[in-house]
Amino acid sequence: MKTLIMVSHPNIEQSATEAFFKTSADFVDESTWYSLDHLYSKAKIDPDREQRFIQNFDRIIFQFPLYWYSSPASLKQYMDDVFTRKFIVATQSLKNKELGIVVTTGDALTDFQAGGSERYTMSEILRPFEAFANKAVMVYLKPFVVDQFNYKEVTDKQRLLVAYLQYLNAPMPLSLENREKWLLAQLKQSKLDTAPQQQQILDLVIGAIDDQQDQIDDLKMNIKLIRDQEE
Amino acid sequence: MKTLIMVSHPNIEQSATEAFFKTSADFVDESTWYSLDHLYSKAKIDPDREQRFIQNFDRIIFQFPLYWYSSPASLKQYMDDVFTRKFIVATQSLKNKELGIVVTTGDALTDFQAGGSERYTMSEILRPFEAFANKAVMVYLKPFVVDQFNYKEVTDKQRLLVAYLQYLNAPMPLSLENREKWLLAQLKQSKLDTAPQQQQILDLVIGAIDDQQDQIDDLKMNIKLIRDQEE
Repeated sequence: MKTLIMVSHPNIEQSATEAFFKTSADFVDESTWYSLDHLYSKAKIDPDREQRFIQNFDRIIFQFPLYWYSSPASLKQYMDDVFTRKFIVATQSLKNKELGIVVTTGDALTDFQAGGSERYTMSEILRPFEAFANKAVMVYLKPFVVDQFNYKEVTDKQRLLVAYLQYLNAPMPLSLENREKWLLAQLKQSKLDTAPQQQQILDLVIGAIDDQQDQIDDLKMNIKLIRDQEE
Repeated sequence: MKTLIMVSHPNIEQSATEAFFKTSADFVDESTWYSLDHLYSKAKIDPDREQRFIQNFDRIIFQFPLYWYSSPASLKQYMDDVFTRKFIVATQSLKNKELGIVVTTGDALTDFQAGGSERYTMSEILRPFEAFANKAVMVYLKPFVVDQFNYKEVTDKQRLLVAYLQYLNAPMPLSLENREKWLLAQLKQSKLDTAPQQQQILDLVIGAIDDQQDQIDDLKMNIKLIRDQEE
């Protein structure tokens, strides 16, 4: 799976959160980090070139800090410039691709609800992107929301790292089965880059997960047989 | 009432709808037409100057064609540049001012609902602006939505003209009483600019509306008396 991470952030160099994401994304071979603000700072962009480029990817991620309940202006500028009605609606050039949203906010996620200081849920606030995915016949992924990154403990950041890597290239939706498949693929990949003495340990881990998966499959089969007899 | 009409439209000169609005707004003495795309095409903007400027107005209107379920990028750029957290949240510099949205769309308004091609209502799509008004402690006015302007008949455009003028400077909410007050103010203003032979006709019209208002007030008083006796 090829993933494009379109980052909209006017001060990307100063952002600890984006640095964290960038370092994480570097672990994923088939992901491409694409800073829209850098793109616009260089020269006038070429919509035709951008349209050809974006079609190479299976999963497109809009990644940004929430600025006044939307993305910063650079993503909107890109959408206005590149996502012409012809490209999106007439030729349906992004049809069936996945659209993910990675959004960061300094406010606590619990403030995003009726009665909270932000009043509306993140689902409501991101509705324009969902409506866009709908119009483009894309698959809208559950948004990946990171609140108050700078207050997080190290263990929370580690969990966040794994969740982010999965958001970049695990099959969706993130069921237990899909998570496990993804984990096995990561371990097998790591094995190739590892010293021989550690490969044995990884083999044991991979074997253990495979065995567990076999057990789960057996148990599921048993449940199915029991249910079939009941009917 | 002083009204600022902030127009976000990358091709404002080619837009028949914006030309119509511009001509209409010229009738309203205390309204200021402000093209954000022109502003940005000239030079780097000065946030301090913009902040001082915008505070002169009582009603601020964001006016734009709906581009991918939001405003074009220039309004977002302006919000990102000028509406700093300090200006909006810490000093609450726009507190109690009114925020209006004038939004135009080529799709029929009936498509904006569950089951329609646009799926979401305009209220849902404009939620980020409502959330902004909430955060700025502004009064969010009912958005003024104009769909399929180019297909409208002349009489519909005339009705639209009056409704737009009211949206610019009538007291809100637009109750019958507020509409009538606004109409009387417009007629009295017109009288000053009119030839003497027509002033008599306007006087008759103004007198008739005043008489009707007196009758309505009497009837309301009667209803109140009857209700009071019932209790």
